[in-house]
Amino acid sequence: MEKNLYKNLFEKLDLGKRVVIATVLDNNPCNSNSFQNKILLTQEDLIKYDKASSFYETIYEKAKYALETGNLQFVKVSEEKTYLIEPYFPEPNLIVLGGGHIAKPLVEFGAKAGFSVTVIDDRPSFANKPRFPEAENVICESFEKCFDLINLNESSFVVTVTRGHRHDMDCLRKILKYDTAYIGMIGSKRRVKGVMEQLLSEGYSQEKLNRVNAPIGLEIGAVTPEEIAFSIIAQVIQYRRLFDRTTGTIKKSKTNWPEFDRDVLTKLSEEDNLSKAVITIVSTKGSVPRKEGAKLLITSNGELVGSIGGGCSEGAVINTARYMLRNNITYQIERIDMTGDVAENEGMVCGGIMDVVIECFNF
Amino acid sequence: MEKNLYKNLFEKLDLGKRVVIATVLDNNPCNSNSFQNKILLTQEDLIKYDKASSFYETIYEKAKYALETGNLQFVKVSEEKTYLIEPYFPEPNLIVLGGGHIAKPLVEFGAKAGFSVTVIDDRPSFANKPRFPEAENVICESFEKCFDLINLNESSFVVTVTRGHRHDMDCLRKILKYDTAYIGMIGSKRRVKGVMEQLLSEGYSQEKLNRVNAPIGLEIGAVTPEEIAFSIIAQVIQYRRLFDRTTGTIKKSKTNWPEFDRDVLTKLSEEDNLSKAVITIVSTKGSVPRKEGAKLLITSNGELVGSIGGGCSEGAVINTARYMLRNNITYQIERIDMTGDVAENEGMVCGGIMDVVIECFNF
Repeated sequence: MEKNLYKNLFEKLDLGKRVVIATVLDNNPCNSNSFQNKILLTQEDLIKYDKASSFYETIYEKAKYALETGNLQFVKVSEEKTYLIEPYFPEPNLIVLGGGHIAKPLVEFGAKAGFSVTVIDDRPSFANKPRFPEAENVICESFEKCFDLINLNESSFVVTVTRGHRHDMDCLRKILKYDTAYIGMIGSKRRVKGVMEQLLSEGYSQEKLNRVNAPIGLEIGAVTPEEIAFSIIAQVIQYRRLFDRTTGTIKKSKTNWPEFDRDVLTKLSEEDNLSKAVITIVSTKGSVPRKEGAKLLITSNGELVGSIGGGCSEGAVINTARYMLRNNITYQIERIDMTGDVAENEGMVCGGIMDVVIECFNF
Repeated sequence: MEKNLYKNLFEKLDLGKRVVIATVLDNNPCNSNSFQNKILLTQEDLIKYDKASSFYETIYEKAKYALETGNLQFVKVSEEKTYLIEPYFPEPNLIVLGGGHIAKPLVEFGAKAGFSVTVIDDRPSFANKPRFPEAENVICESFEKCFDLINLNESSFVVTVTRGHRHDMDCLRKILKYDTAYIGMIGSKRRVKGVMEQLLSEGYSQEKLNRVNAPIGLEIGAVTPEEIAFSIIAQVIQYRRLFDRTTGTIKKSKTNWPEFDRDVLTKLSEEDNLSKAVITIVSTKGSVPRKEGAKLLITSNGELVGSIGGGCSEGAVINTARYMLRNNITYQIERIDMTGDVAENEGMVCGGIMDVVIECFNF
């Protein structure tokens, strides 16, 4: 059952959806298996269950906050019960349509900014891996057909920088069918105006066209291809961190991207019969190598997957997790104090404190 | 005399000054040597000679415009006279104080954006060339003493991203003594407020402190070191392209950086006895490899320095220049038509038209 939950998690993420997994950690020995205490929620679920029963009210409230901010919530609601609300965000994709002189630095910057980058051009000499070593995917296909090969969704940031505004317009017609995180189109004010008027006359709504950032990029007076790429990536980051999809405006507080341990989650979704303990960081203080949400998994046959940052103190928690697996203990909260671990090293102050929750998944 | 003009040009540029060289191209055979017809002007000269005689009025007006916009001016004022107004801008320097996790991507981005980058830290493990391969200079020195080793001027963009706000504050005290193009300091709003209050109490004027961009960078919600570096470089580019020093505000039209052929200008400043012809692009139309201001020099002993973009049609102008050198012709205006040179190649339309002026410097 828990395996299905994590399979479901991956399915939602592949669709570009943000997900929350809410866990009720219960001291009551009658609810001894944390498996039954996990629920997966998406934005759509939260809207649907807006008027949830008061029993779930706190969970839904915290889940909403986690989806918005990317911050993990660890809330003790009673002596018996603690809620662990973990947000999981899909990896943001940067789709660059056109492989010319602006795409070259943009693809590089996109990868540096943490995007999985796809670049598309219909000319083999522009759409090839050696030209774009930082791209996850390089697709050589017409701008007409390429949309069948990519997956545009709420986590897609789409930039059209093709060699001509006719191609840009063709792309735009396709892109506007999808619900994407960002759309930007290159072009002078005059050219952009022409494209917009054309699309309006074809029946595209003004509201839809307003989603297009054109002329593209923040207004920094960019001249060179590199400068234009900087202005674009700055705007894409702004949309990733500050754009509020519900209001369509730039908000004040920035969205965090939660830690994501793919290997751990994959392991949890696998059809083996191993018992597993998962250590999750739930709060940190000071300088720590990994943040809230980072995970380390220990299987009953001794395998270790993921990391909560290493250090001497980590060993003690691993031993605790092993003890719990042997003795069928459901969950436990532990503190890892690393303030003594690392000395002041060339001026970089290291060391911090983190609280972790250890959950056992017994099969 | 002309050699001194070009030496003077380099001296001014080294001080971070923008320079205009105005040339009067005269058909009157009495003024046969263009050497006597060149004048070098800086912003200060233009302010000083604001009320210039009407004889120079057009030159001063055009020179002002060239200094502001970076655009070369080529103006026929009468049947006999044409003015060539060439702006020369110093290479912009990015000075990064602190060699930590933000400096790492910032130095790389700075070089990509066309800055000559200097990075400074007092820790050898942070201030070393392998860590910053893209930096022009890596200086390992205390933040106290390093200012004696660098040249801060109107072309300097200074970023303080040291490991502590005490160091940032020490740096700021030094930087504020200079007239720089940009100052930015890292830090949270709270921390920045503390630094500013401290410096105010030490007697620094509010006006001076207002020059400091702190918290640094455009507000894009940057979280990771790379994102912070993107937000900083975007702001630095904005200051380079759009900041109006005279009004202290962001302007609408962007400043161009004129082409700069160091080798050609160096050759013109040299103490040899060679006659030289210089071909300068004065206007372009369509897709051309180099822009207004680009230069190609031909010496009387056949040496070629610099480039106006190559292509078959370039050869004809070189022949004209050689003929002029042999026959003591002062200057000539020529058109280079490259529209037939390069065919449409994989969708990239090449070819354009450019006007050049050929000037002979006879010794």
